[in-house]
Amino acid sequence: MSIHPSVAAIGAGDVELHQPPSTKRDGRGSSRAVAIAIGGAEDKEGDKTILRDFWQRAGGEHSDIVVIPAASGIPETIGPVYRNLFIEMGTAADAVRVLDIRNPFDACNPAALELVKHSTGIYFTGGDQERLAEVLGGTELMQQLRQRWLQGKTTVAGTSAGASALGHQMIARGYSGESPTPGIVTVKAGLGFLAGVIVDQHFHNRNRLIRLLTAVAHRPDCIGIDEDTAAAIGPDDTLEVIGAGTVTIVDGRTLRSNVTEVDLDRPFNLHDVKLHLLAAGSRFCLTTRAVV
Amino acid sequence: MSIHPSVAAIGAGDVELHQPPSTKRDGRGSSRAVAIAIGGAEDKEGDKTILRDFWQRAGGEHSDIVVIPAASGIPETIGPVYRNLFIEMGTAADAVRVLDIRNPFDACNPAALELVKHSTGIYFTGGDQERLAEVLGGTELMQQLRQRWLQGKTTVAGTSAGASALGHQMIARGYSGESPTPGIVTVKAGLGFLAGVIVDQHFHNRNRLIRLLTAVAHRPDCIGIDEDTAAAIGPDDTLEVIGAGTVTIVDGRTLRSNVTEVDLDRPFNLHDVKLHLLAAGSRFCLTTRAVV
Repeated sequence: MSIHPSVAAIGAGDVELHQPPSTKRDGRGSSRAVAIAIGGAEDKEGDKTILRDFWQRAGGEHSDIVVIPAASGIPETIGPVYRNLFIEMGTAADAVRVLDIRNPFDACNPAALELVKHSTGIYFTGGDQERLAEVLGGTELMQQLRQRWLQGKTTVAGTSAGASALGHQMIARGYSGESPTPGIVTVKAGLGFLAGVIVDQHFHNRNRLIRLLTAVAHRPDCIGIDEDTAAAIGPDDTLEVIGAGTVTIVDGRTLRSNVTEVDLDRPFNLHDVKLHLLAAGSRFCLTTRAVV
Repeated sequence: MSIHPSVAAIGAGDVELHQPPSTKRDGRGSSRAVAIAIGGAEDKEGDKTILRDFWQRAGGEHSDIVVIPAASGIPETIGPVYRNLFIEMGTAADAVRVLDIRNPFDACNPAALELVKHSTGIYFTGGDQERLAEVLGGTELMQQLRQRWLQGKTTVAGTSAGASALGHQMIARGYSGESPTPGIVTVKAGLGFLAGVIVDQHFHNRNRLIRLLTAVAHRPDCIGIDEDTAAAIGPDDTLEVIGAGTVTIVDGRTLRSNVTEVDLDRPFNLHDVKLHLLAAGSRFCLTTRAVV
């Protein structure tokens, strides 16, 4: 494990006082922070709309951000890319750290736990969601991180693989360009921020609607997010669309299907799946399934 | 224009007596024959399930089949491929003709008109649906062909581009792998067999759901057909699925959208689109939108 720029910076300062502005309570008493699922390839050179949105919600100039590149095969490269972006936006250099953990042992390191305790923003990079879940899933670090998010103290964002891993369940692998069969997706446990929702990314860009429809045959609610597009999900389950493309809601609550796990290669019937395509500025309530 | 094997064969015999077995009447008095939209790449070497289904509906051994390769860039090659297949199934060699018309003038040739008058089965090959519609659209040949189909005297099938062209309207061109915008599909007039339905083909294989969703923003009912899969649509508007993959029904009747033609490149909102994925053996009524 390595923490950049230095472990010594952990816990310093008063960032704990700056709760992310996105924190709010809904009627059901949830005070969790916003979770931002990003479809990958978010703009890093122009207006940086999505990254700036995360940064603002995490506290802006007063933010304390931890970048976790555990999904990436090149964490030593990708971690600093995001770190520099958030510093350029205005966060103090010693308040943006890269937490480069590569196995579950790293995730038990007291220094890592200490780092997360003071964060107001967590950013999961892209890469491979299976790797990310293998490194972090079920660790004490994840428990603390989720606890802090549930308390509304840290905004959580993930891009690409990092977005997929935000769900309690995620598409670990999948195919496109085939007739839909149960075998074209593999669903595994994610990091457990978003309950009951499966998130897919690079969505229309990589033609993933069919794999998400296959996933919805097993789980009722799925969200597909295009590149340079994000779904910011608040504590009241309202989803707000940010960025250049669309967020696709696949609503399987009225679904009828003859899918069985027995024959993974056999095309199946799916009836009454409802779709919603949402462009930037749209707000949609995941509980009521209605436009806000 | 050329007609194979010979124009002399036109009008010979008693094929007129053999109405396709698929012809039937529904409660609204329609006696039209079945139209079979095939998603392309139909099996030509194994069981030939789809081609055999068309052949049976066209009268089997007593069929009089006209193959129209007008969509194809290599009509002199693709026409005889289908001709030989139907002869191998049992139709007399002089009762399977290739109608190789390449422009609207060819479609006015009396010999072509005479040929169609006695057909019990018409098969449109793949290629380019725009070329097919440009050659045949609005011609006297098409009027006679459609009249004969409406009277229940000739079963009509089209594969790939031939399937797209069966609609009153068709997707002439489209893209995949982009966020959905109004600009990703171009809709033009088809050959006018299937009213109110836009047909797309090579469907999941070429990731075309988004372009069909975009088309549905303009027209309420769309059908996407996978490769080696067919939708046989009867006179009572019941669609039956045949073959290896799935037929996807995109039902936009309850759709709400902010699509405008003004900004073709801007992602749009689509709410409450309903999807049905149907595997082989499924029967679905396009009028009631219910599984039969």
